[in-house]
Amino acid sequence: MKIQLLLTGDELMSGHIVDSNSAMIAELLAHKGYRISRKITVGDNLATLADELEQISAHSDIVIVNGGLGPTVDDLTAEALAQVIAKPLVENSAALEHLTQWCAKRDLVMNDANLKQVILPQGVAIVPNPIGSAVGFSVMHNNCLIICTPGVPSELRLMLKQTIIEEICQRFPSSIATDVLRFQTFGLGESSLQQLLTTHCQDWPVEVELGFRASMPLLEVKLTIRDPKHQALRQQCYQRLQQLIGTHIIGENTTSLAQAVIALLQQKKQSLTTAESCTGGLIAASITEVAGASNVFEAGFVSYSNRMKQTLLAVDNKLLAQYGAVSEEVVRAMAAGALDASHANYTIAVTGIAGPDGGTEEKPVGTVWVAWGSRETLKTHLFSLKASRKWFQQMVTALTLDLLRRELQGIDEEPRYFSRY
Amino acid sequence: MKIQLLLTGDELMSGHIVDSNSAMIAELLAHKGYRISRKITVGDNLATLADELEQISAHSDIVIVNGGLGPTVDDLTAEALAQVIAKPLVENSAALEHLTQWCAKRDLVMNDANLKQVILPQGVAIVPNPIGSAVGFSVMHNNCLIICTPGVPSELRLMLKQTIIEEICQRFPSSIATDVLRFQTFGLGESSLQQLLTTHCQDWPVEVELGFRASMPLLEVKLTIRDPKHQALRQQCYQRLQQLIGTHIIGENTTSLAQAVIALLQQKKQSLTTAESCTGGLIAASITEVAGASNVFEAGFVSYSNRMKQTLLAVDNKLLAQYGAVSEEVVRAMAAGALDASHANYTIAVTGIAGPDGGTEEKPVGTVWVAWGSRETLKTHLFSLKASRKWFQQMVTALTLDLLRRELQGIDEEPRYFSRY
Repeated sequence: MKIQLLLTGDELMSGHIVDSNSAMIAELLAHKGYRISRKITVGDNLATLADELEQISAHSDIVIVNGGLGPTVDDLTAEALAQVIAKPLVENSAALEHLTQWCAKRDLVMNDANLKQVILPQGVAIVPNPIGSAVGFSVMHNNCLIICTPGVPSELRLMLKQTIIEEICQRFPSSIATDVLRFQTFGLGESSLQQLLTTHCQDWPVEVELGFRASMPLLEVKLTIRDPKHQALRQQCYQRLQQLIGTHIIGENTTSLAQAVIALLQQKKQSLTTAESCTGGLIAASITEVAGASNVFEAGFVSYSNRMKQTLLAVDNKLLAQYGAVSEEVVRAMAAGALDASHANYTIAVTGIAGPDGGTEEKPVGTVWVAWGSRETLKTHLFSLKASRKWFQQMVTALTLDLLRRELQGIDEEPRYFSRY
Repeated sequence: MKIQLLLTGDELMSGHIVDSNSAMIAELLAHKGYRISRKITVGDNLATLADELEQISAHSDIVIVNGGLGPTVDDLTAEALAQVIAKPLVENSAALEHLTQWCAKRDLVMNDANLKQVILPQGVAIVPNPIGSAVGFSVMHNNCLIICTPGVPSELRLMLKQTIIEEICQRFPSSIATDVLRFQTFGLGESSLQQLLTTHCQDWPVEVELGFRASMPLLEVKLTIRDPKHQALRQQCYQRLQQLIGTHIIGENTTSLAQAVIALLQQKKQSLTTAESCTGGLIAASITEVAGASNVFEAGFVSYSNRMKQTLLAVDNKLLAQYGAVSEEVVRAMAAGALDASHANYTIAVTGIAGPDGGTEEKPVGTVWVAWGSRETLKTHLFSLKASRKWFQQMVTALTLDLLRRELQGIDEEPRYFSRY
C-alpha cells in the first residue's frame, strides 16, 4: 500500500516555517504499521497544487494533503481538489454547522474570512475538527483516498487521532506492523557507535534492524523487528548493546535527560536544586517541563550577576575577586549556596561565558565550570564548548543533567565527552 | 529558473525527526532572490533515490540533495548519484585529505565507517565541510547542477553560507530579488487580522504583497515588494498597519518578545527579575537566551514549592494558607519578594497549575495568576489556559513578556487576549 503526503504553503517553500506536521503524521501512522513512501511540498499555487494532486493520487492508495484550508486568499486546497475531481465548489452544510457552533462558543461573529472555509468541493465527506474553525474533508478519486487536513499542528494532531487514522485502519487493514524498541543515548556520536558495533557485533542478526536518529543532544537507537517471533532475539541484541554502551543509555522510548534524572531522584527520595549563571534558568526549565518535577524540585536560582551570586547564593566576594565568576572555586560556592538555601540534597551549578561577548584570552567564550552532586559527593569539571549562545546553553544543560544522572546511577567511569570538550 | 530539493532519510519518513534543513536552505536562498519550487522527501532506498534524482534533475536547473552522506550503511546518496551520472564510485583524494585532517585535529583514529565517506562518484567537485567529517559534492548532469549536502544542520548551514549559495549566485545570477519587510505581532489570530484588513484596507495596493506566518506564540506579517520603486508605497501600508494593530506589534524582522522587553528595559536603564512557579525557569531562560540580557537581568527565582515561596521570596505563610499558592495575593507577594531580593526595578511573577495533575474544581489545570510591572505599577491578571503542560508553560511565558512589553511601552489599552483566556 502506498501513502503519500502533499504539503502546501508558501511559508514551507520560503523557509519561514519548519514543517513539523509531516513528522507527526508519519509517527502516528507508524504506530499502526503504516509507512509514508514519499512527501511532496509545493507553494500556494492553484495550478501546481492541482497538478501534483492529480499525479500523486494516480500512484497512491492514500494521499494526505496538509495545509491550505485557512481563511486567507492563499488557502487553495479546496479549489485544487474541486478541479481534480471535477466538481463545483459549494457551501457545505456540515462545515457551516461546525463553523456556526465554533463561533458561538467563542462569542465571535462569523466573518467572511471564516465563511470561505465552508465552501468545499461537492460530495466530500467532512473530517471533524474538534478545536479549529476549518473542518477537514476526504473523497475517493481514481481508487485513491484523498484526505485534506489543516496546517495548524494542534488541530491536525487531534483529527489524526480521533478520526483519520481510524478511517485508514478500517479501509486498509495493515499487514506488516513493525515493532520498534527504541532507547536514548547521550555522549556517543553516530559514527563512533557504528564503529563500536562493526567491531564488536559482527554477527548481528539480520532479523533485528538497527537504526539511529541523531536528535541533539541525544542519539536515539532503534531495534526494529517485523515478526513478533523475533522478540527474544531482539532482547539478546538489546542486552549486548547494554553491555557495550550501557553507561550512555538514558532510558527507553523517548526518555529525556531531565526525565531520567527526576526518576532516579524519586527512587532515592532525594531532591534537587539548581544554581545557574550562563544557562539562565534553562536547566530548571528543562526539569520543570516534566510532569511530576515538583516531587523532587523545590527551587532554582538564576544568579546572573556577581552581586546576585553573593546575595542569593552567599558566594564570598573574595572568591569572585580572586578567581573570577567563571572558576572552580565560584561554581563550588554556588553549589553549596544553593544547597544551603533550598535544603535540597543534590544540585547542579554552572558558571560560564555563553557569548557572543564577554570572553577573554584566558577564558574565551564557551568556557564553563560545572558542579554536580550532593554536598558530600560534589564534583566539578571545566568544559570548553565552541558554539552559538543557544547551542552552548542547551549543551551545558544536557551535559550537567547527564553528569548528575551518572552520579545518581553510581557510574564511576569518566564520560568520553570529558576529552572531547 | 527552477530549484528543487531532494531530501533523503528513513528518519524523515518515519516521523522520528522534523526536517528543519529545507527551511534553512530556502531561507538562505531567498536572501539572494532564489525560490525553491518543489521539495521531494523519500526514504533510504537506493532505487527510489536514483529514480527521483534522475527525474527531478531532468526538470530543474539546480537540485540540492540533502542527507545520506553519513558513515552508516543507510547513507546512499553517493551511490545513487553514481548510478544517475553513470560513473564508478572511487576514493576521492580531496575528501580523503579532508577526513585525514579532520581526524587528526580531534585525535581520532580514522575508522572504516568514516572512510566510507570518501568513496564518491568519479568526477564530482568537492564542497568543503568546515566542521564535519563528510564533504559535500556537486556535478553537472543534463544541464542541471546537482549539489549533495550533509544532513547535519550545523554543517549544512556553514556549507551553504561559505560555498554553495555563492556558487549558485555565480552560475545563475538572480533576476528578481524580492524585498520583504517582516514584523512580529502577538495576540492576534490570522483570521481576525485578515478580517481587520478586509474591513479597513479595501484599497490595499496590489504592488505590496501581504503574507502571514503563524509561529506560536507570534504571528509574523510580511510586506513583499518585487520592485524597489514601490518602497514608499510599502511604507504607507506599514504605517496603516501600525495605526490598525500597532499595540500588537512586537518588532521588525525576527524580534522575539524577550528581545523587545530587553530593548525597552535597556532604553529606560531599568532591570528585571522573575519569580516563577509553574513556568519553572522558562521566563528567565527566554530572557537569558538573548545576548546582552545581562545588562538588564541580574537574578531570577524558581520557587516551585510553597516552602521556597516563603524562604526565597518571603511570601507570608498566612497568605499561602488563606488564599492558596495560586492566588492574586500570593503572586503579588512573590513579585514584591523578588523585587526586594534582587533590587531590580521590574518583575514578572507567575503561579499556576501546569498540570496534568494538581488541579481542583475551583482551580483547574491551566489556572494561572500573573503579576508584572514595577513596585509602583504592579498589575495582576488571572488566565485560564486549557492546554498541554508544555504549551501552558510557553504561553504563560509569552503572555507575561507581552504584558511587561505593553507596560514598558505605556500602552493603556487592555489586550484582546484578556477576554480570550
